[in-house]
Formats: sequence, C-alpha cells, structure tokens
Amino acid sequence: MRKILVIGSGKSTSYLLKYLLDKSETEDLHISVGDINIDHATQLIKNHQRAKAFILDIFDTNTRSEAIKHADIVISMLPARLHIEVAKDCLLYGKNMVTASYVSPEMEALNQQTIEKGLVFMNEIGVDPGIDHMSAMQVIDKIRAKGGTMILFESFTGGLVAPESDNNLWNYKFTWNPRNVVVAGQGGAAKFLQEGTYKYIPYHRLFRRTEFLDVDGFGRFEAYANRDSLKYQSVYGLDKIKTLYRGTMRRVGFSRAWNMFVMLGMTDDSYTIDDSEHMSYRDFVNAFLPYSPSDSVELKFRHALKIDQDDIVWDKLLELDIFSAKKMVDLKKATPAQILQKILMDSWTLGKDDKDMIVMYHKFGYEIDGKTHQIDSTMVTLGEDQTYTAIAKTVGLPVAIATLAILNGKITTPGVQIPITKEVYEPILKELSDFGISFKEKNVPYLGYNPLNI
Amino acid sequence: MRKILVIGSGKSTSYLLKYLLDKSETEDLHISVGDINIDHATQLIKNHQRAKAFILDIFDTNTRSEAIKHADIVISMLPARLHIEVAKDCLLYGKNMVTASYVSPEMEALNQQTIEKGLVFMNEIGVDPGIDHMSAMQVIDKIRAKGGTMILFESFTGGLVAPESDNNLWNYKFTWNPRNVVVAGQGGAAKFLQEGTYKYIPYHRLFRRTEFLDVDGFGRFEAYANRDSLKYQSVYGLDKIKTLYRGTMRRVGFSRAWNMFVMLGMTDDSYTIDDSEHMSYRDFVNAFLPYSPSDSVELKFRHALKIDQDDIVWDKLLELDIFSAKKMVDLKKATPAQILQKILMDSWTLGKDDKDMIVMYHKFGYEIDGKTHQIDSTMVTLGEDQTYTAIAKTVGLPVAIATLAILNGKITTPGVQIPITKEVYEPILKELSDFGISFKEKNVPYLGYNPLNI
Repeated sequence: MRKILVIGSGKSTSYLLKYLLDKSETEDLHISVGDINIDHATQLIKNHQRAKAFILDIFDTNTRSEAIKHADIVISMLPARLHIEVAKDCLLYGKNMVTASYVSPEMEALNQQTIEKGLVFMNEIGVDPGIDHMSAMQVIDKIRAKGGTMILFESFTGGLVAPESDNNLWNYKFTWNPRNVVVAGQGGAAKFLQEGTYKYIPYHRLFRRTEFLDVDGFGRFEAYANRDSLKYQSVYGLDKIKTLYRGTMRRVGFSRAWNMFVMLGMTDDSYTIDDSEHMSYRDFVNAFLPYSPSDSVELKFRHALKIDQDDIVWDKLLELDIFSAKKMVDLKKATPAQILQKILMDSWTLGKDDKDMIVMYHKFGYEIDGKTHQIDSTMVTLGEDQTYTAIAKTVGLPVAIATLAILNGKITTPGVQIPITKEVYEPILKELSDFGISFKEKNVPYLGYNPLNI
Repeated sequence: MRKILVIGSGKSTSYLLKYLLDKSETEDLHISVGDINIDHATQLIKNHQRAKAFILDIFDTNTRSEAIKHADIVISMLPARLHIEVAKDCLLYGKNMVTASYVSPEMEALNQQTIEKGLVFMNEIGVDPGIDHMSAMQVIDKIRAKGGTMILFESFTGGLVAPESDNNLWNYKFTWNPRNVVVAGQGGAAKFLQEGTYKYIPYHRLFRRTEFLDVDGFGRFEAYANRDSLKYQSVYGLDKIKTLYRGTMRRVGFSRAWNMFVMLGMTDDSYTIDDSEHMSYRDFVNAFLPYSPSDSVELKFRHALKIDQDDIVWDKLLELDIFSAKKMVDLKKATPAQILQKILMDSWTLGKDDKDMIVMYHKFGYEIDGKTHQIDSTMVTLGEDQTYTAIAKTVGLPVAIATLAILNGKITTPGVQIPITKEVYEPILKELSDFGISFKEKNVPYLGYNPLNI
C-alpha cells in the first residue's frame, strides 16, 4: 500500500479526499489525514477502510516528523505560512510534497537541496495559482510550437457566487477567505505592462480602472488589476511581451461600489480604532465623515463621495444595513478592515443552499509572419453544495491528480517547482477535463490597445 | 569663558549663531561650530574672535567625544536621527543639550539617566515643534488659571513663501526640505477629535478635507490635518478635550491641486520605477494613465480626474511644465515621489531675492461657568533674505535663547523634555517678542462644530 499523508483538512480538502478515496482501491492507496481538529476529516472520510483521520498539531515536532517519516508522499493543505515546517521534514526524510500555495522565499531556498535529493516539491497547483499556470502555459507552448510570438497575455480569475445563488445587489458573496477580499489590492501600487509601457495604479484608484470581460453563457464580468502582474513574466518566458496584465474578476458594478469603502478609508488595516467595541455600524461609518450635530450620516456620505440620488451604489449600501444605529461592531480594538469585514459577513455569507463559482479568463495575443491573432480561453466551474464547492474542486483536484502522478513516477523532475512544464500540465489538464474543469478556446481578432497601429 | 558647542551648521543656524555671537561679549561665551563641511559656518561666523568653525565628522567617535567633553553646553542641529549619538556623549560627560527636533524613542529612553545626573536635554524647541508648544501652553495655562476648562484646541503651522515673493499659481515654494512636502501625510490615516468623536481621514482624501483660516493682514489660508493630532493630548493635559486638531497651512487652493498628484499616485514613495532615468516628465505622468496610441496625455489626465476645461488646477499643472516631452527625469530607479520632487523643484525653488514666511494659528475654545469662549492666536514671521530666513529665525532663536537660559541656570528642571512648562516658555516667548516673533490674540465667539448645541 502507498501511504499518502494529507496535513490539514480545511474546506478545500473535500474533492481532494474524495478523489484519493475513489482511487484508493485501484491505486492501492492509504490516506492519513492529520489535523488539530479532525471533525471535518472524519466527516469527509466516512469510515473508509483505506483512510484514517488523526490528531496532528503541526507545532508538535515529534508527531509531525513521525507522520512524515512513515508516508510515501505528503500533501500540505495548511495555511501557507506553515508549509515550510512540513517541507523541512520532507527534505529530511526524503519525501515528495505537494501544496496549492505560492512558493515562499523560504520554500524557494530549499530548491537546491530538493534537486540534490531528487525530490519533487510541487507548489501553486490549486486555482490561481495552479490551473491558471497550467492552462496558460498549454496555450503559450502551443502558440510557440507553431512559430508564434506572444505579444499580449492577460489573465483573470474570480471566486464568485454561482448564478443561481446570485441574489444580492453586489452580485457577490464570500466564497473563500473574507479577509483577503477586504484587503485586496493593498500594500502598494498595481504594476502592469500595456503596449510596452509600464503602468501604475495606486490602491485608491484600483477599483475605478476596471475592464469588462464577457463569458459565453455567463454574461459580463469586470476585472481589477492584481498588485504585481509581472510576477510570472520571466517564468512564463514572456520577457519581451508588450502587454501583461493579471486581474481579479467580479460581477459588473462591484468595483465601483467597493470603491466607496476604499475612498472613505474603511478598508484600512494599518491601525486600530480604540473604541470599536462600543460602536454601532453607523458610528463606524461616521468616523470617516466630518462631524455635524445635525446632518445625517447618510447625507454626509452622499456628499463626501458625490453620490447622486438615483445611483444604484446607494442601494448596495442600504442592503448591507451599514447605517444601522442598532447593530454593534462588537470587536475590541479592531482595524477598519476587520470591522468592515464583520459588516459584510452579515450579508455576504453563503446560505445553506448557496453554490459558488470559479471563473477564469485568459487572453493570448500573438504574431505569426507579421499577422496578429488572439485566443481567448475561458473556464467556469460551479460548486455542487457547501461541501463540494467550486473552490474545493479547482484547488483539490489538481493537487490530488499531481500527487498520484508523482507517486506513479509520471512527474519526476526534481526541485521546488510550479506546474508550468508540459510534463506536469498535460496529464493534469487532461484528467481535470474528465471532471468538467475545461477551457473553451475561441479565436478572436487581436485588438490589443493600439488596434489602428498608430 | 563659557563654551557652547554647536554641532551642525545647516540652513537653520544663521539666526542661532548671530544671536550667540551678539551676546558673546556680554555673556562671556565662546562658540565652536563643528560640521563635516565648515563653509557655511565660516561664512556665518565671519572671523568673530569668540567663535571658531572646525571639521567634525559625527561618526568619528574620538573627535566627537573630545569636542563634547570640552563644551559647557551642546546644541545639536544635526539631522534628527543623529542626535542620539550626541546625547549619549552628553550623558557620559555630564553636559546639557538642546535640539529643535522631535523626541525620538531612543532619546526618550535617556530620560531617567538625565534626571539622575541633573541634566537638561531640551528638545522640540524650534518651530513646529517648539514655538507652537510654548505659545499654546502659555494660553492654555492662562485659561486654566482663570478657572476655564479647555474644550477645543486646534493648531496650524505653515512654512510658506512671503507675500512679496508669492508669484506662482500654487502660491507655494519650497522653503524647507522639499521631500517632506512631497510625502507629507503618508504612512497612515490622519486621526483627530471633533466634538468628542474620533475622526479618520485616509491619505488619499487628506487634501480634500481642508478648512479655511484668516490671518489679519495676510488674508486667507487653508489647512489639512496632520497624521496624529492627538500626539500631545496628554502632554498638554487635554485628555478630556472634545476637539483636538493639528494641521499644516497652505495658501487657498494648494491642497485641491496637490490632490491631483495624490490621486494619480505620483507622490508614492514605496516603489521605484525601473526606467525612470530615460523618462521625460510626460512619460512619468503617462505611467499613471491608461495606454492609448492616440489620445493625448493631457486629455487622459483631465478625464481620469474629471478636470473641467476652465478649472484653474489645470493652469497650475501647465505652470510646472509637467507635460513636457523634452525635460527628462534623469534620475536612476527613482520613486514617483522623488521624480515629482524633481519636477516641482524646477518651479518651486526660491529665487535669489525670494523671502519665506512662517505662519501659525491656534484656536483655544474653553468654558467658564457654563459659558463658552474662544481665543484665536496668530503669528507671522517673514524672512529677511535667503540666509536670514523666517524658518532659520523661528527655529534658531528659541534654540539659542533656551541654550543661554540653561547655561545661566534659569532653566534647571532636569530630564529629556519639551518646552511646555512656564519655567521654560515664559522667558523664551518674552525674548522672542523682542525679535518680532509674537502672537496676536483675539477673543472670538466660540463656535466649535456644534454652534446650535443640537
């Protein structure tokens, strides 16, 4: 029996475990799931005879290294900052490892040692990062194989609510970590390339510089720029590309409304509000508006942001009940971002029957023999329920498939890596399509940002 | 002979040295001025027989401690971060010390030791901080002495160009460190108190939440909030005050125009622009605007910030020649803030005959026997020329006067301190008024922010 150790059993492990359990007989697998709380794992495993859940405190060095020592391969589904502890043990005991998280500098530093030991440490193999890498590189390699030169690459991903559960004015609910949504875009200007020139957008303008994207069958979306669109420029081999842009997708109108919070300073996570515990939602909003003994918070808000009487953004605010003088913040010394998150969670938490959705949109512009072409590639995955979500599917399945491929010697190139080589993406994308995760490609006229070639 | 050691001989030392030299006979003083470059010191001393300039590298421990060992009192006019080296030597050799800078945490940490050794380490005794502390505490103590309770304190300072030299559309020139002006307000939300409630303004809205101030004989000014208006709340004994606000003064219209740079991200100092060296001013502006092969940078700018055709802010931009395709940035890997500073220095550097101006405005609201009152107190100091500037006068004179007062045993309370006690501010403010630095007080109706008491 080949022993797979899964460390961490959070929300994104449902499909991962289902896939491995379904294959456990034919592939002769045993799956151990270690977590500090095994309730979720136990529920997912359902007494399967080839699996067990056990209590694992990642900070308990003995238990951790014992578990890793006895595994054939290790999957870390822990919060990103904790992978490094697992990675060090994997290196020590010579185990391959898979994570869905960004390669941290500490992880990157292990590259040489993993190569020397012939180990595969596969990272960023979930969804953004993960499926985006694989699907993009597949098309880019195909374009290159036919002699094309990449001139534009834009890539967008969104974690959203499924159309059938999309029933609020923001067309948005939290389908993943709410905190990441509230502080998205903070920490520096967004940087990207447009027609060969670097462009910069400061945080406070990020949500007013969106672009539209149409996905067949799902209508129109919008996207705002990620902090660093150039992160994978060299890794993807796009050093000479003219346009390079990565963004986050939302339904149309979300960003313009979100911008109200940004402008007033309600997304700030850099300081705490002393008396936050005793504030009502209304007090919180009022802290960002000038004092007035008589003017309403509502009118001060409208005036500060010049919101017309008939602007739909106003109804979006009302839907959140953000002007309530009764609802209390009830958080001690909280940052504005933490308070806003709490207010939003009242309205944007998924209901029992709500389903989520992952949308991805790539644009590939290229040139062959002086002629320009463009391929647009889109993927939509819908969740089934609150356990088998679209996010769990798109994160968990590539992780599970990669794990088995490494175990079966189909992925062998050693090192700390991300899934951008054909060896990795071809078999995984192929198998993902059996699960309904597949991209629709479309040839469209290349437009770029200089269609008339001025 | 009493020996005064002045370390650092930058722009703000002209009046300081003049004052000490003028008093050197009657007070029996000898003044040594140490700096790494003694050109300015030599020029200011003019072969005075009771003074000498000598080369002093603050990082050369031997020379530094020898100089301090032989002095009776030490004035540090170094950049703020370097005071601590001088302070440690002063502590070691038992010398009193004076600086015009903010008390750093490192300096504050020496408090107990200075008290034990009976030493006076006087800080923040220039202008903002300095004259603002003294003039404010004088009025606050006076109000308290007659049984009043402080309910409002607002304090504003501006370093500006004198009216006779005020000849550009921004009504502004750099009279002090340009960098501080470009990055002013960055690093967190501005926090202040209005009628008992905390208010917060994020950086990107700071310059759109100004208030007007009228100074007799000098017309109208505007002020934007400082980062932390509450910094001196406890120190001034204002823990129960309802309104507390500190701000920076500019001529009317400056902030609304400056906000254009903030909004586009041109004041950002947190990242560098790779190809800044080869950018024209126009390229720099264009980096913050969407790509277009044909639309002009001008129209994209107007559109991005919704600037009407007849808005004066546009002429302010043109005056800076910021759309020039010929003028080059010529700075390697510069931050947006550094590039903007360079562009502004073309236009805002003081001309040979230009004079500067320091303006200060305090509002004191208080209550006696259930009745509210308000005192407004203003001070304007004009520079004489480019050596004897208003800033040198308002920084240097209080430093010099305090130094002599300490030397003559008129200020004796030991410790790391700022000038907020009567022992310190009374004699210094009195002498400052002999030099024309004096406050005009006016009783005005108390308005606050709730005049109808709703």
